[in-house]
Amino acid sequence: MSTPASPAPAPGPASRSGMRDALVTAAVALFGEHGFDATTIDDIVARAGVGRRSFFRYFPSKESVVFPDHEGALRQMSEFLADEAGFGQDPVARVCDAARMVLAMYAADPAFSLARYRLTREVPALRTHELAVVRRYESALAAFLRARFAGRADGGLRADVVSAAVVAAHNHALRSWLRSGAQGDPAEVVEHALEWVRATYSDDVPSAPRGGEAEEDVMVVVARRGTPMWRVVQRVQEALD
Amino acid sequence: MSTPASPAPAPGPASRSGMRDALVTAAVALFGEHGFDATTIDDIVARAGVGRRSFFRYFPSKESVVFPDHEGALRQMSEFLADEAGFGQDPVARVCDAARMVLAMYAADPAFSLARYRLTREVPALRTHELAVVRRYESALAAFLRARFAGRADGGLRADVVSAAVVAAHNHALRSWLRSGAQGDPAEVVEHALEWVRATYSDDVPSAPRGGEAEEDVMVVVARRGTPMWRVVQRVQEALD
Repeated sequence: MSTPASPAPAPGPASRSGMRDALVTAAVALFGEHGFDATTIDDIVARAGVGRRSFFRYFPSKESVVFPDHEGALRQMSEFLADEAGFGQDPVARVCDAARMVLAMYAADPAFSLARYRLTREVPALRTHELAVVRRYESALAAFLRARFAGRADGGLRADVVSAAVVAAHNHALRSWLRSGAQGDPAEVVEHALEWVRATYSDDVPSAPRGGEAEEDVMVVVARRGTPMWRVVQRVQEALD
Repeated sequence: MSTPASPAPAPGPASRSGMRDALVTAAVALFGEHGFDATTIDDIVARAGVGRRSFFRYFPSKESVVFPDHEGALRQMSEFLADEAGFGQDPVARVCDAARMVLAMYAADPAFSLARYRLTREVPALRTHELAVVRRYESALAAFLRARFAGRADGGLRADVVSAAVVAAHNHALRSWLRSGAQGDPAEVVEHALEWVRATYSDDVPSAPRGGEAEEDVMVVVARRGTPMWRVVQRVQEALD
């Protein structure tokens, strides 16, 4: 279950990580066989062949064993957003890149992602747990944007709305992929969704030259009054491409 | 505690609504005095002077007593969105109106809203409960938009992103008001936040005439390549106003 996107929370000898994986595998199998509510932590440790205290060394609750990679992904995302190497990048593009790291975690193990998706749909306690996890991703993105938009009019509002939009777009695309049985690579559909949000909120028009005064650098948009705003934006983007 | 935006879930004689209010008042007072975790349901019913079974007639859990008006507000919102009278309205403007109904619930009782805000910040179980409530509002808005955007390219994506943006804008403004001690009327700051989202996603430019071919109906925007998209949108909006 360990993937590049999910280092074990307590780094240690290989056997530790193996024990953690065994607990996750046993838990998900038992939840599938008997249901989440009917499965106890004692059942899980018995199936995994480890002691009860080992469970709590890796997981604070029965719910959290279904989301074993999120702590690692959250830490990775925070490090990525704190990395000064990204300070020159457009902030909206940066949070879209951060969202792609979460996708990578799901895409690294489609069978497990699918099993979790099905469990989460059936068990209210897991849905609630997932909401809290998603909220932490969104808060990390919003904190980054708030700092980058500081001093700008409506900076705090913009930070909260853009982070919510990025998370909603990511989750929309991720759910489509999971609903279709996690077939193929989810990257393309997520890419499309994130690009839609980035184009709405980004200050950057990456393909356009900057600062030139030549006639080719001037763009003219003519529209009838009453043209929907999204259509104007679409035309401007086409003109810039 | 009963407000125009929050009819009691089980309509009945006035004494019932009074009993429900008494439970909410007792619970919030006890949570403030002894903390949420240290207060039992027995403590609440003793303070309210009612039997233990009465509690569960109104509330499924200790958490839900802190959010007594949300079931009513959710029902009101669903009825509002299902009302055919709104089918001629721009869908994005309609979901903004639906969000204003939630605001009205908070604004109707600032002291209670503030007490809940402080409790919710301190008690993880209440934060999680609130996330689940907010998610239900967002799902109701998304379902409405999905139906209205059906057949449109990226209709499902647009529905999820717009509903998330509306909820984020509403909550951003609501939190500013609560952080400032719930002073004054929150309507203005919420209005500004919702209008910002509406202008981004709405197809409607309500002040503009439609279908005319006269020269005054044509708008020209000239911008240097590399101009940030938001600045182009801003100029277009200024031109349309």
